[in-house]
Amino acid sequence: MTTGKLFILSAPSGAGKTTLLKRVMADLPGLAFSVSHTTRLPRAGELDGVDYHFVSRDQFEAMGEQGTFLEWAEVHGNLYGTSRPALLAQLATGVDVILDIDVQGAEILRKSAAIPAASLFITPPSLQELERRLRGRGTDSEETILLRLKNARVEMQAVLDYEYLIVNDRLEQAIDTLRAVVIAERSRGHRLPTGQAIEILGEL
Amino acid sequence: MTTGKLFILSAPSGAGKTTLLKRVMADLPGLAFSVSHTTRLPRAGELDGVDYHFVSRDQFEAMGEQGTFLEWAEVHGNLYGTSRPALLAQLATGVDVILDIDVQGAEILRKSAAIPAASLFITPPSLQELERRLRGRGTDSEETILLRLKNARVEMQAVLDYEYLIVNDRLEQAIDTLRAVVIAERSRGHRLPTGQAIEILGEL
Repeated sequence: MTTGKLFILSAPSGAGKTTLLKRVMADLPGLAFSVSHTTRLPRAGELDGVDYHFVSRDQFEAMGEQGTFLEWAEVHGNLYGTSRPALLAQLATGVDVILDIDVQGAEILRKSAAIPAASLFITPPSLQELERRLRGRGTDSEETILLRLKNARVEMQAVLDYEYLIVNDRLEQAIDTLRAVVIAERSRGHRLPTGQAIEILGEL
Repeated sequence: MTTGKLFILSAPSGAGKTTLLKRVMADLPGLAFSVSHTTRLPRAGELDGVDYHFVSRDQFEAMGEQGTFLEWAEVHGNLYGTSRPALLAQLATGVDVILDIDVQGAEILRKSAAIPAASLFITPPSLQELERRLRGRGTDSEETILLRLKNARVEMQAVLDYEYLIVNDRLEQAIDTLRAVVIAERSRGHRLPTGQAIEILGEL
């Protein structure tokens, strides 16, 4: 049975990741988010089980002790984790899964090599532009903005550890590039739909 | 200086390679053909120095003795070769180069690892469909068609040696996939435009 492909994706806050992903996922069938567990509170419009599995810190820690998490990390004071059984079950349905994860989590996953994955980093064209965007969206306090900028500066040093870099300068071009990476990865030799490979190679 | 990326591309006769490449190259700037040397005669409309460098067998063999060719092969009774200095000079201009090459030539290049390259194989959805297309274009004799089918059967066994497989079933989808592979390869970390990488990483 064909199993889905895992895409590990990181981006500093404000790089435009959410918009990019929404657009590409609307265009390409067969792509789904991995749903992380988190202890942070839902933002307006976020749904439990869709955007995240929202859990208490106690629940999260209990799951961690049971070895449920492939990786977990504390970011901006909240815990985020990827449930190994949930991710494997999702991939087993044949869907390609996007794992939206911070730089530390991505490094843990890469080192463990637990699941083959393509890794992508979405970056703003510059830190000045990132700051402009963070201030422009008007949802964060000055303290939060400064924290995000500081984190971005650290995160962006990991940029060359990723296979693909998507510079979100012009939105439409960045969407096209992200879309292209997914399509290209799907056309890798070992990723041919099983039926098709059999049809082609079976005749020889 | 950024050097161009090499794309090695193979396909059985009749897989639709020429149409695909024309469409993708019209859409994406910065892509050019490697111009091979060949001893075969020009077909109607083919231009010397554009489609191929057309040379006599004597000239070709003299170049081969001088070590000019990165690879060469005899296909359907004609010699085809890739001039190493010409290819390197083309890549040095920063353009991405598509090297349209047969399966044996691709294998030689891969084994020599002379130049980093992404390899693509374009395949018809089935051998029956390939035969239908070869007969449909009405340019080849029965003998040539049978030879091409026999060659295709052999060539398609190499399909899994290539990084990317493009099944040319529905043309528009195949164009989209080929285009995606080029864009995705361009977004690989080490392929960022030098100026852009400096702008992003230089600030950190």
